[in-house]
Amino acid sequence: MIDEKHDFLVIRPAEEADVSLLAEFIRGIAEYEKLLDQVVADETILHESFFGSQPSAEALIAEWEGKPAGFAVFFENFSTFMGRSGLYLEDLYVNPEYRRKGIGKALLARLAKIAVERGCPRFEWVALDWNQNAIDLYEKWGAEQLKQWRIFRLSGENLAKLAGTSY
Amino acid sequence: MIDEKHDFLVIRPAEEADVSLLAEFIRGIAEYEKLLDQVVADETILHESFFGSQPSAEALIAEWEGKPAGFAVFFENFSTFMGRSGLYLEDLYVNPEYRRKGIGKALLARLAKIAVERGCPRFEWVALDWNQNAIDLYEKWGAEQLKQWRIFRLSGENLAKLAGTSY
Repeated sequence: MIDEKHDFLVIRPAEEADVSLLAEFIRGIAEYEKLLDQVVADETILHESFFGSQPSAEALIAEWEGKPAGFAVFFENFSTFMGRSGLYLEDLYVNPEYRRKGIGKALLARLAKIAVERGCPRFEWVALDWNQNAIDLYEKWGAEQLKQWRIFRLSGENLAKLAGTSY
Repeated sequence: MIDEKHDFLVIRPAEEADVSLLAEFIRGIAEYEKLLDQVVADETILHESFFGSQPSAEALIAEWEGKPAGFAVFFENFSTFMGRSGLYLEDLYVNPEYRRKGIGKALLARLAKIAVERGCPRFEWVALDWNQNAIDLYEKWGAEQLKQWRIFRLSGENLAKLAGTSY
């Protein structure tokens, strides 16, 4: 049964030829998250980020029966307490027509495997609090929700203003 | 007045000779966050992480009248939508006896400056939801709290279990 599923689903690292596919997926996830107005990344920027001389992220592609069905973007972060890198999943997306086939879980499982192989003690990601379906699955798969932590972001004018503060 | 403050406070990048100081600071922050049992990092691990052949994080040291008073640990993360790196502050700590002197803000301001210099469009960090003093300051300095996002973490046995899942 497992072998049979393997015939349909392939998870592979993204290659340079996948840049336009990655751009398409990113617009897909932004639309789903209702954040399309925030997307700045184009193919030139993505090529540099994933395949430039100093890549800042990596990606996995999921193919179902040979067709691109989903993707995951990840990078290594750092835990001060562990003194080591962890794996951080920045985005995971499965095209609507390929959902409910276990592709999301397969991408997460592959990332967990990469974390173990690289000696990363933690594998982390974020989810929107209204996405209860996803949250239920993450918890079912053993992820702990870090309920006490809140994320803060400085950008644009406020970032420039603090950057210019004298001390 | 600003120049006068500069005489007391120096913010500088951490150097190899600072590894034991970094280890001390990390225990300090863990104690403050009531998470001392989670600290695994020792001097060997920290040396490799900050000054090894492939550093996974960077640190700033704050000195007040020539004495170490605080530190910040940071790395570059990645935003899929921006297609670019952001600056991520992993930890910031000021020794209790040096608080209320503006050292925390000076560390944040220096990091904001580094983000701008490196072309990072976002500067992000997390805070514990009971740390209202810190949250009030972050918001005063222009940071936006991303209230909709929740953090998930897989580690230990649950990480190994998902890593071993067939698909």
